[in-house]
Amino acid sequence: MKDTMYGIVKANPLPGADIVENLPIPAVGDRDILVNVKAAAICGTDMHIHGWTTWAQSRVPIPMVFGHEFAGDVVAVGSKVTEVKVGDRVAGETHIPCNHCYQCETDNRHICENMKIIGVHVPGAFAEYISFPVDCAFKIGDIDYKLGAVLEPMGVAVHGVDAADVKGKVVVINGCGPIGLMAVGAAKAWGAAKVIALDVVPGKLEVAKEMGADVTIDSMKTDAPKAVWEETGHGADVVIDYTGNLTAIKSGFKMIRKGGRYVLVGLPNGKLEIDPTEDIIYKEATVIGVTGRLMYKTWEQCLELLNSDKFNIKPAISGEYALRDFEKAFDAIKAGAAGKMLLIP
Amino acid sequence: MKDTMYGIVKANPLPGADIVENLPIPAVGDRDILVNVKAAAICGTDMHIHGWTTWAQSRVPIPMVFGHEFAGDVVAVGSKVTEVKVGDRVAGETHIPCNHCYQCETDNRHICENMKIIGVHVPGAFAEYISFPVDCAFKIGDIDYKLGAVLEPMGVAVHGVDAADVKGKVVVINGCGPIGLMAVGAAKAWGAAKVIALDVVPGKLEVAKEMGADVTIDSMKTDAPKAVWEETGHGADVVIDYTGNLTAIKSGFKMIRKGGRYVLVGLPNGKLEIDPTEDIIYKEATVIGVTGRLMYKTWEQCLELLNSDKFNIKPAISGEYALRDFEKAFDAIKAGAAGKMLLIP
Amino acid sequence: MKDTMYGIVKANPLPGADIVENLPIPAVGDRDILVNVKAAAICGTDMHIHGWTTWAQSRVPIPMVFGHEFAGDVVAVGSKVTEVKVGDRVAGETHIPCNHCYQCETDNRHICENMKIIGVHVPGAFAEYISFPVDCAFKIGDIDYKLGAVLEPMGVAVHGVDAADVKGKVVVINGCGPIGLMAVGAAKAWGAAKVIALDVVPGKLEVAKEMGADVTIDSMKTDAPKAVWEETGHGADVVIDYTGNLTAIKSGFKMIRKGGRYVLVGLPNGKLEIDPTEDIIYKEATVIGVTGRLMYKTWEQCLELLNSDKFNIKPAISGEYALRDFEKAFDAIKAGAAGKMLLIP
Amino acid sequence: MKDTMYGIVKANPLPGADIVENLPIPAVGDRDILVNVKAAAICGTDMHIHGWTTWAQSRVPIPMVFGHEFAGDVVAVGSKVTEVKVGDRVAGETHIPCNHCYQCETDNRHICENMKIIGVHVPGAFAEYISFPVDCAFKIGDIDYKLGAVLEPMGVAVHGVDAADVKGKVVVINGCGPIGLMAVGAAKAWGAAKVIALDVVPGKLEVAKEMGADVTIDSMKTDAPKAVWEETGHGADVVIDYTGNLTAIKSGFKMIRKGGRYVLVGLPNGKLEIDPTEDIIYKEATVIGVTGRLMYKTWEQCLELLNSDKFNIKPAISGEYALRDFEKAFDAIKAGAAGKMLLIP
Repeated sequence: MKDTMYGIVKANPLPGADIVENLPIPAVGDRDILVNVKAAAICGTDMHIHGWTTWAQSRVPIPMVFGHEFAGDVVAVGSKVTEVKVGDRVAGETHIPCNHCYQCETDNRHICENMKIIGVHVPGAFAEYISFPVDCAFKIGDIDYKLGAVLEPMGVAVHGVDAADVKGKVVVINGCGPIGLMAVGAAKAWGAAKVIALDVVPGKLEVAKEMGADVTIDSMKTDAPKAVWEETGHGADVVIDYTGNLTAIKSGFKMIRKGGRYVLVGLPNGKLEIDPTEDIIYKEATVIGVTGRLMYKTWEQCLELLNSDKFNIKPAISGEYALRDFEKAFDAIKAGAAGKMLLIP
Repeated sequence: MKDTMYGIVKANPLPGADIVENLPIPAVGDRDILVNVKAAAICGTDMHIHGWTTWAQSRVPIPMVFGHEFAGDVVAVGSKVTEVKVGDRVAGETHIPCNHCYQCETDNRHICENMKIIGVHVPGAFAEYISFPVDCAFKIGDIDYKLGAVLEPMGVAVHGVDAADVKGKVVVINGCGPIGLMAVGAAKAWGAAKVIALDVVPGKLEVAKEMGADVTIDSMKTDAPKAVWEETGHGADVVIDYTGNLTAIKSGFKMIRKGGRYVLVGLPNGKLEIDPTEDIIYKEATVIGVTGRLMYKTWEQCLELLNSDKFNIKPAISGEYALRDFEKAFDAIKAGAAGKMLLIP
Repeated sequence: MKDTMYGIVKANPLPGADIVENLPIPAVGDRDILVNVKAAAICGTDMHIHGWTTWAQSRVPIPMVFGHEFAGDVVAVGSKVTEVKVGDRVAGETHIPCNHCYQCETDNRHICENMKIIGVHVPGAFAEYISFPVDCAFKIGDIDYKLGAVLEPMGVAVHGVDAADVKGKVVVINGCGPIGLMAVGAAKAWGAAKVIALDVVPGKLEVAKEMGADVTIDSMKTDAPKAVWEETGHGADVVIDYTGNLTAIKSGFKMIRKGGRYVLVGLPNGKLEIDPTEDIIYKEATVIGVTGRLMYKTWEQCLELLNSDKFNIKPAISGEYALRDFEKAFDAIKAGAAGKMLLIP
Repeated sequence: MKDTMYGIVKANPLPGADIVENLPIPAVGDRDILVNVKAAAICGTDMHIHGWTTWAQSRVPIPMVFGHEFAGDVVAVGSKVTEVKVGDRVAGETHIPCNHCYQCETDNRHICENMKIIGVHVPGAFAEYISFPVDCAFKIGDIDYKLGAVLEPMGVAVHGVDAADVKGKVVVINGCGPIGLMAVGAAKAWGAAKVIALDVVPGKLEVAKEMGADVTIDSMKTDAPKAVWEETGHGADVVIDYTGNLTAIKSGFKMIRKGGRYVLVGLPNGKLEIDPTEDIIYKEATVIGVTGRLMYKTWEQCLELLNSDKFNIKPAISGEYALRDFEKAFDAIKAGAAGKMLLIP
């Protein structure tokens, strides 16, 4: 192991980030593990931090290495770690639970009341090494590190699809960014009758088809609720929103059939206006908020999908860059790339 | 049986209604039953019809007998009726399902896609006799007709509490009209840890205490979300809205803990502004629309509660008038009576 | 329409059955429909009736046309039928619910307390025409009559898989007769991680592979629980029994992991010896009895699967005979055919 | 804190146990806590250890302090403990999970594949002090230590009732030992329509009435399934077995209605003979194995019940002895005491 490492540091309260050499290898607490990062991926959150949006300004202490989707090899473990050992291949759960609040105590660690977030509140994974709590390590068996690095965002996709209960149902996936695209694949793998994918970018809809979408709708050019109604006769059984866009979320309420479900995953800014009587009550709709991933039921589900031939994640990964070339990857995302971008240290 | 009957007729497109004598006894179709009404109760819908609001104007054909909460004796059955017989004591389900749409076919008759409503679309129960489909008859055993007449609104209360899954939980009941009051009692009977009742009318909160509320909050005088938070430490496990008031519904989102449920029953007019990220997604809240009653699981639940000593409906019934004195009952409701008003033909 | 019809009649209390000509066309009650049978299929129950086993002797009134898996065209409807019309293509649900017992009233018509069975208690479908209650008609859209005829047994398969909740799970299907084979296909279509099919007939295991089984085990030659344990590491998530064989059912308990499910569908004769502490309690296993099909949620699920490309029923159908050649079909089943046998009037 | 302690030691492979003085205070590992035991209770497991049955002989290393139902004050914490602090009042979960097997990873720590049991595999609580993993500590707020000591067995009762989903249902509780008695109370508190308690000891049935049973049946003198059928008309909605007696468990299958649930909690020795077709499949019964308690959802439920006025545990506690007088308590249990016996160090 080297004495120092390099990493991407958010150093200044301005857009951008820097490769910094000779960073110290992070300290390993008694319940922490040190991982040599073999692959990382870029999240929308990282775009906020890189761009230094108001969201980032109010949360992220600088200077700090960011990044939180990653996989690698365990190279050291704290004195009280028993769950993993040096040499294990692991991916990292972003959410650090406190383990003793009401949510942690009743099997909802992923919505811990005192949650810390890797790469937001504490140093992250865009570096050669990361130290983090063993509670957040998930063993990835022998899958490729690059797939390991996307388990975390795939978990968001799969958690939403799991909550939607898609078997035999007509499922609308609204939003075909990386997470929506993985959701299209998961919905098909779990037996959806028909997946209708929506986006405003034609290129993303093309990738949605590769992921298995039966129908794609350009919601910029088409009245999407009307089109969904025509496809289904009586509305969609389930709508899952991965857009986080207020207009898109609002239109989703108009797509759901009586007794249907609406799963909200994408995070909008601002207020949404709904008509509770028509949108929820008379329909007996159920609206379900989903965030993060179940620790670790969802991870097990993701691993199973990746290891199966019923799910192909490839179209949802758009590119791969050396970690030192991270700016190219950020640029590609800004330019409208549909799938995930990987960074390889 | 008499040759004619009297009943309350909504005859003119103006506020008010009339007692009309010598109405024909309604015809009994092959799958209908004729019931001699022994007790009826007044619903909010009846207030709309009586007051001839825009809601009523767009739905109710006049002249027509209205009223849809009732119980009585079966005095005739159609040629194809096998389920009940003359002499049976029954109450009436308001919602007439078509029996062959997708919802009817998959055990959701209560949200039938082609639903007709007794006392709104077809003649109702504020009369000596009513004829209606046997599909809508529920045998009430030997309970009092007056309790039979409130099974239907009680079903709305109980359906909401059932969806909320209140066992061992801190439950906010928002709105202490007749249905909210019955919900307070049902939540206590089914093992809620604590029932917090909210209303803006102190007299209704007093009745809520009689129904078993552990805590009452006057949401006119108090910051209700703040008060709920103080009572609970981390928010209410469940909020059930029976107000149908937009401001009240909005405040309910602020009362729910992470992972909690919000059941919407009351029917608001107009648009609601919510913050999906904070109100639903980060919290992983589940918002559930509830309308009507399960046919007939909810009815069985209501009958069980009425027959038990763990539920006392009495405080939720505020008065009883002869059917011919219906105007007094309508006036009492307008004056702010908390509980149900009964009309006895 | 003809004046008379032919059909297969179980006439004598001996093995066998007869083609009888000039049978009267069945009468059509007010809530019945008359269907011109276009395709039928042979159930294990029909084998009992044909072979005149003790099971049949105690239930079936003779002489009677039997057979209960069928599809065809509606050619007449009773005076009180509104749900279907002449010309509709329908399949028949075997179970006739009473519509007013506790189970019927609470959305469990398929386990009606007063159930009558078509082709067992009342005349069946191995004939040119059948009259049966419209409650038991399911519209099959434009799928082939032959597929329509196997919807009923497929419903048994799918109901079991639905109860097992197979998504992402290792699923053991024990018994690869027609229903087990269809269950293999349904489990794969609904996202099972791995389907392990068990039987004692190698030819049936071959068909199981065609239906999508990932692993097949000849439980005559192999210690099946041990083999399942080796495949899984910690036991199967779910076992579904379609054998109805006591030894097979017993072995299934040894295959389930902690927290797993065991769905019992096949109907054994006689008593089963289990070790409740080891087989159920310490494991927190859930054992679920499944019979018939949900009316009509399961039927909708079957139709969806048949209309999709994720499920191929063909390998589970072994042959097709003219109805007049029924003895050949019965012989083929006795000779060990894996899949369904169709009879075409 | 003292330098040594006394405790009840199982020292010899013979019936009985001994008070031993001057035992060392147990060592406190980094993730352990040391608790000054204020109250303990005797479990059936302790009866096995005391009596040195074959069950105990195959599991318990001697010499060892036994006992595992307890509450007390935290007097020391390991260097890596953050969840509790000196001075906290806690009770102990008996089951020590490994935290990294499949069950632990997917929210089923209570059925951990590598579970250790306090007082069976590692030293227990019948002493002045006990050291155990902080993972097994549950903060009891300000309830009495004696109630804290019975939270663990109460958890078994409540976990069974939770799995049974008793709201509005007719519930048979089979077996009125301490856990069955607490289950009677919990079933009533959570809204059971009717609780029918069964036992063979009239005195225990008397206590069941005090806990809220609506009907009691002496299953020694009465044909219990027949009596349950008469009480219900169509069978019990739910049966929960706390007897662990094979004859009793077998009879339970005959009590359940179609679509009902059978929860097995009591641990029988030996084999049970059932008729799967009649007992489970045709009925669509669900049989659910329950062991231990959910960590810590069930504990939260118990605490809520103890803090409420809808549940009174007092009748289920039969006596209280000084820890040094433990033989008197063991004798009282052997003599047929219905409720829990407490031991106070």
